[in-house]
Amino acid sequence: MSTTQTSKIEIRKATSSKISGVDFENLSFGAVFTDHLFECDFKNGEWSNPVIKPYAPILMDPSSKVFHYGQAIFEGMKAYKDDNNDVWLFRPDENFKRFNNSAVRMAMPEVPEAIFMDGLNELLKIDQEWIQRGNGASMYIRPFMIATGAGVIANPSDEYKFMILLSPAKSYYSGEVKVIIAEHYSRAANGGIGAAKAAGNYAAQFYPTNLANKDGFQQIIWTDDATHTKLEEAGTMNVFFRINDTLLTAPTSERILDGITRKSLITMAEKEGLKVEVRPVIVSELVEAAKNGSLKEIFGAGTAAVISVIKGFSYQDVYYEMAPIENTYGALLKEKLTSLQNKLSEDTFGWTVKVQ
Amino acid sequence: MSTTQTSKIEIRKATSSKISGVDFENLSFGAVFTDHLFECDFKNGEWSNPVIKPYAPILMDPSSKVFHYGQAIFEGMKAYKDDNNDVWLFRPDENFKRFNNSAVRMAMPEVPEAIFMDGLNELLKIDQEWIQRGNGASMYIRPFMIATGAGVIANPSDEYKFMILLSPAKSYYSGEVKVIIAEHYSRAANGGIGAAKAAGNYAAQFYPTNLANKDGFQQIIWTDDATHTKLEEAGTMNVFFRINDTLLTAPTSERILDGITRKSLITMAEKEGLKVEVRPVIVSELVEAAKNGSLKEIFGAGTAAVISVIKGFSYQDVYYEMAPIENTYGALLKEKLTSLQNKLSEDTFGWTVKVQ
Ligand SMILES: Cc1ncc(COP(=O)(O)O)c(C=O)c1O
Ligand SMILES: Cc1ncc(COP(=O)(O)O)c(C=O)c1O
Repeated sequence: MSTTQTSKIEIRKATSSKISGVDFENLSFGAVFTDHLFECDFKNGEWSNPVIKPYAPILMDPSSKVFHYGQAIFEGMKAYKDDNNDVWLFRPDENFKRFNNSAVRMAMPEVPEAIFMDGLNELLKIDQEWIQRGNGASMYIRPFMIATGAGVIANPSDEYKFMILLSPAKSYYSGEVKVIIAEHYSRAANGGIGAAKAAGNYAAQFYPTNLANKDGFQQIIWTDDATHTKLEEAGTMNVFFRINDTLLTAPTSERILDGITRKSLITMAEKEGLKVEVRPVIVSELVEAAKNGSLKEIFGAGTAAVISVIKGFSYQDVYYEMAPIENTYGALLKEKLTSLQNKLSEDTFGWTVKVQ
Repeated sequence: MSTTQTSKIEIRKATSSKISGVDFENLSFGAVFTDHLFECDFKNGEWSNPVIKPYAPILMDPSSKVFHYGQAIFEGMKAYKDDNNDVWLFRPDENFKRFNNSAVRMAMPEVPEAIFMDGLNELLKIDQEWIQRGNGASMYIRPFMIATGAGVIANPSDEYKFMILLSPAKSYYSGEVKVIIAEHYSRAANGGIGAAKAAGNYAAQFYPTNLANKDGFQQIIWTDDATHTKLEEAGTMNVFFRINDTLLTAPTSERILDGITRKSLITMAEKEGLKVEVRPVIVSELVEAAKNGSLKEIFGAGTAAVISVIKGFSYQDVYYEMAPIENTYGALLKEKLTSLQNKLSEDTFGWTVKVQ
């Protein structure tokens, strides 16, 4: 391991790379990590000692607050390599802002922009060999923060660790998915933490999702917990519905994650001249549209899955499936978004940022 | 470190004890741990290698699911030492059951009774010197389970770590507390995980609690998230209200933790001939009772705090404080409960269990 200092980030390089052992054609999502990670600790009221070092286990006190009180947030973003071997990020400022919004809601310290962005940039440069080109390939990026302060008393930690991990990825879901509409379980409360990318929001969904899986459904579309009448989002995706030629999606709220894919698709769809309505989508309206054939498409949208086609949904034990159609909005938007992200088309929105 | 095998638990004793450095008169809650901890790992579908070993940091993969998706649950219980230096647990079967209920809700494996109970028993025996007698002293016990499986994909881990930590304690809160009744923020959703002792439930409360603290209130009394009209519980305590001579407390639900102190107090109060009503307690009813003077007492009930007197509450920016009275139900029940737990009175309920 050689140690050098680049700007303020200490760089400790791995002595050898694991890359030759990786089968890039058969990557299972989020399972393989690159040679290095970025780490920065918060102590005595400040962030200090940013370092890029070999990916390795970390030492944690068993009473660390993250284990007992769940102070943990994360982001999910991707980097893409173009034909010139340049590496591009997609709207990283949005992830940075959302990360700090999550931090505030979870009573965690915000991460300075320079630490988040420089850490990301330097880490991607060091492990750029791991980023594949084309064909849905990308580098999945996982910034996260955990409470490392010790003590089993339920109050905010005074120490934290911010890290960035890199995991080479193909696409998240394969094939079309069937979903179930939540009638009893919920993802988020009014006045709760649903809009934060907080770790606890995800574990809360595992049990109901397991139940759905047993019944042959891959995902749940969550509804508002008070009435279960408003369609909100899926576990790691926002959701779009096409009724006749109108694309519908729920407004964001304190219960719903403000997805970057979602907001990008809304902008792109409008630019393509599609009619988009951002308004509460009611379960009965969806069922009605499925029955009378005006429901044409449903798809999920998120960084990991990009766009995930939803083939049909179950509600009150009845399964509704859309008739297959040609030229779907989902396929059009996926094509537009991924070619922009992969620098195969012009980025007229100014969303792509070069790693340099 | 000497290694011996007691029943199935491997025992690795610390070579020296930290006890002489501990100021038992000035313990800050949850901050000091004994010499040993209990640990057992879940791998390949089974729990194996239970071990008692010196308290020390653990190695965790940075992609461990607990950090990213919040699969983490815990329990809080206490052990007491009587005048014969015998050590007693209070209703440990209830904590064990609740722990596994939490595990199920968070899609985590249940811990076998023998591992939970024998681990607890042996650990308390090894560190029994740390348990102080009398005067509110106890050993706070923290069983917990975290997801240790690696991978940044939002699904249940296949590896877990179960641990028990011991922390000598005085009482949790000092003095009387003022609370604020939640009007916007919430602790739990219908169909959510509020009834589980899941780590994520606690971090979710820190930000609103910080806001309350800034306004001079130590705690929040949570209300139902849909209407904010029903009084539910506090951050780590269930709540009782005395209106005239009736003791009121909310029924448990999927939004409320089924507290062991709460259910013990209900039983004891009834035995004392007090009138207890377990039914939804409405905010407007409380405000009315505060105004007309029929509200006599409010107190929180939980393992850490035992009974915590609540002096007054704020609602819609108005602060209501109860006139001080003699012979409170809170004081009576606290005295009955703590003398039973400390073996100073006869345990007619069969709630105390000897460590042996
Ligand atoms: C709950 C939830 N909803 C939606 C999304 C989609 O957000 P984004 O498009 O920013 O990835 C995510 C994250 O990926 C998520 O975790
Ligand atoms: C949210 C919550 N409510 C109530 C309680 C009280 O439960 P118990 O009396 O079992 O300690 C606790 C835990 O201590 C808690 O975390």
